[in-house]
Amino acid sequence: MGAESLRNRLEEARKTLYERLDRGEDPTPFYNEAVWPLLLALWREDPPVRPRFQPYEVSIHTVGTSPEATILAILGTGAGRVYLLHTEESQRYLERIQRETGREAYPIRVDKSDVTLIYKTVAELLGRHRGARVALDLTSGTKAMTSGLAAAAFFLQRIHPEVQVVYVDNEGYDPRLRRPIPGTEYLVRLPNPHEVLGDVDEHLARSFYREGEFKKASAYFYETAKKTGQEGFRLYGHLAKVYHSWKDLDFPKAKKDLETLLRDLDRDAHLNHPLNARRKDLEAQQKGLSAILALLEKKDLSDKEGVAWLAATLLAGYEGAKGHLPLAALYAYRALELLLQHLAAGMGLDLEAPRPTPEEEEALKATLKALLPTEGEIRIPERFGLLHLLAYLKAKDHPAFRHLDPKRLQGLQGALRARNKALLIHGLEGPKEGDVDQVARLARELLKGLGVEAKAEPIPL
Amino acid sequence: MGAESLRNRLEEARKTLYERLDRGEDPTPFYNEAVWPLLLALWREDPPVRPRFQPYEVSIHTVGTSPEATILAILGTGAGRVYLLHTEESQRYLERIQRETGREAYPIRVDKSDVTLIYKTVAELLGRHRGARVALDLTSGTKAMTSGLAAAAFFLQRIHPEVQVVYVDNEGYDPRLRRPIPGTEYLVRLPNPHEVLGDVDEHLARSFYREGEFKKASAYFYETAKKTGQEGFRLYGHLAKVYHSWKDLDFPKAKKDLETLLRDLDRDAHLNHPLNARRKDLEAQQKGLSAILALLEKKDLSDKEGVAWLAATLLAGYEGAKGHLPLAALYAYRALELLLQHLAAGMGLDLEAPRPTPEEEEALKATLKALLPTEGEIRIPERFGLLHLLAYLKAKDHPAFRHLDPKRLQGLQGALRARNKALLIHGLEGPKEGDVDQVARLARELLKGLGVEAKAEPIPL
Repeated sequence: MGAESLRNRLEEARKTLYERLDRGEDPTPFYNEAVWPLLLALWREDPPVRPRFQPYEVSIHTVGTSPEATILAILGTGAGRVYLLHTEESQRYLERIQRETGREAYPIRVDKSDVTLIYKTVAELLGRHRGARVALDLTSGTKAMTSGLAAAAFFLQRIHPEVQVVYVDNEGYDPRLRRPIPGTEYLVRLPNPHEVLGDVDEHLARSFYREGEFKKASAYFYETAKKTGQEGFRLYGHLAKVYHSWKDLDFPKAKKDLETLLRDLDRDAHLNHPLNARRKDLEAQQKGLSAILALLEKKDLSDKEGVAWLAATLLAGYEGAKGHLPLAALYAYRALELLLQHLAAGMGLDLEAPRPTPEEEEALKATLKALLPTEGEIRIPERFGLLHLLAYLKAKDHPAFRHLDPKRLQGLQGALRARNKALLIHGLEGPKEGDVDQVARLARELLKGLGVEAKAEPIPL
Repeated sequence: MGAESLRNRLEEARKTLYERLDRGEDPTPFYNEAVWPLLLALWREDPPVRPRFQPYEVSIHTVGTSPEATILAILGTGAGRVYLLHTEESQRYLERIQRETGREAYPIRVDKSDVTLIYKTVAELLGRHRGARVALDLTSGTKAMTSGLAAAAFFLQRIHPEVQVVYVDNEGYDPRLRRPIPGTEYLVRLPNPHEVLGDVDEHLARSFYREGEFKKASAYFYETAKKTGQEGFRLYGHLAKVYHSWKDLDFPKAKKDLETLLRDLDRDAHLNHPLNARRKDLEAQQKGLSAILALLEKKDLSDKEGVAWLAATLLAGYEGAKGHLPLAALYAYRALELLLQHLAAGMGLDLEAPRPTPEEEEALKATLKALLPTEGEIRIPERFGLLHLLAYLKAKDHPAFRHLDPKRLQGLQGALRARNKALLIHGLEGPKEGDVDQVARLARELLKGLGVEAKAEPIPL
């Protein structure tokens, strides 16, 4: 019998069913004897699947107290391998399901109220059929079973993208029958809300951003924008890209990306974007990046603006690398060195070839002698390292060091000399946390003393 | 009327219901007129909630074609603010639900087949009631509605831990009634399968591990162990901790943690742990860490084993820092320097105070002159940097450099001299990718030439 003829006969049977219902009769016997066989024949002949019938390799079904729903789902998914997650109560339907679908099925016993067991079972089955097109059907079963299956499916699609969630929907449900109106059933695929809403991606993007993993953050923000179609997320992606390049000391790229972001924020569509509330900070950072680029181009260490922003960048790197001491040390030492170079240049020292006057040299030697009482002969090197820069500024009575506690100076001396012995520089020593803290503290004080408002930290989202 | 008396009357009504059903009558009218009012009165008096009745501040319910289920859920959650997510079809039940529960409710219209809309609506409501104890009830509604609610609830619990999922379960379902057996209903809380199975945490742990974020990886592995009660995950947590310390050049801690891990793997309970299949590699790494510690303690750069493992560590750091050029550069340069120091020490050079013989000095100057044809006078510094070490080995006709392409040597010369100008060292230049690649390539070749099997990379999970 063709599908068209079956549909006509089903229509007739449905009318009879409603007549009996109107007479106050229990509709179940007639449904079972006359309506269901036609519905079954129709689904075996031409299963109504939206958008189209496309057989799966594997299907997994929760079986509750509506075996009919599962039978239709099996016929609609058309899989070669069928798993039935059934309960103690629904075990009795297994024979009928296999007979009426004409398919052998693998029964797996679960508990009707154990959402976790369902989830675990599904995860195991997906692991067993990795790469196969799998349909997860949640038409039948208790709400606990459905929710376990749904949670598993929608989350595990991240790992098994070839898995799809399907169910038998209908165009009308009859509360008197407590069933769909016969003949209005069809199989559909459920979209993954995580994918449509991009919420998992957004969550990951924000987590990575908070943790300073800007490359990953930007990738997830772009993904969120793609999935949701919301352009606003792209701008967060741009921002994360800016900080990625900045953190990597790729200042030209950071500046270019920040300018793109600022231009995008100017567009009508984005006037209400939350980042526009931080526009002033972003513009200040843009100016900061320009100042750094000018410093790097002209290599003029007396450039206060450029030095302040570069030192702030290095100190932000120090903050970001906390918990990774060797890296944190690098940033802190370099920040301090840069600031000392700047101050010394301001006192007239030629950093490339320091030529102190005889009086300066004498004062410098005296300061060094005080710092290194156990050292023998004090020699002035060709180029000044951290310790010599510090001693030079102290000897010149620079205001930043005039009131520095001698004990602190003594401690700094050890910390400064440790730099070159570090494993990542030339030596075999690990940096000491106390040394690095001291160095960073002094760098922060000197930066503050410059009086430039330089905030190189990523703005919080 | 007390709860006990209500329960007795319900028992009576249920008997009558089944007698009518046995006579082939439609059970619905009697259920509505006699059974339901008693069930409702019982839930208003003493709602059967497991483990105990504990009112929520807010409850959110999907309303399908079983208003009775929603009514019981509202009485069981006892929230002050009630949201009803209803469909076009179930709108007609809103008035009855509010009347029979005696509570005002906020209706929100959704689509019965739109899983994404449900998810989004729930996410918005949770955002509006941040911090409140919220019950998400998935008893009623279509499977699409349930699965949207479940996916939202179980995922969003990561952000809103105070949210709980509840539903009205029963001790027996009657397929003839197509309802739970009256009086066996009770409200329960559904555990979050993600939490119980720790699958999201495990997924995050493995992702962070793959990406070299070992601190976060170990935290998530420990969390997974805690949630699942599976000790095996703790061992992965230990392993991630080992690599975290190793990456941070904290070798004593890495070694100690690796020894703890190896001891744990020896315990009966863990004999089948997948890491036991990698035991040989782990033991080799333990020996490698010991070799590094011996090198750092004795500071004897002719120690081949120690140098090989430390250089391998630095090269693993280089690999891990790829995409972060300034850091990758640091690791690559230091690895090469260490290997050159080792080879030079092997040729008899005193690294602390190089005193080449007159013949050696002449050969060294000639080699340097060939490398730096445009340089004026060639001076030999007090301590050898990268370039001088390389020239020294070349001048001594060390086999590793005998057949090195002169063009490559020329390129290396530029790369080596760039090191000190780097922004993170003493200068204002960014490292060039080509330079760093060359340096890393030579370091890898020299390491291979040592003939020590040193694998400092994290073993893949």
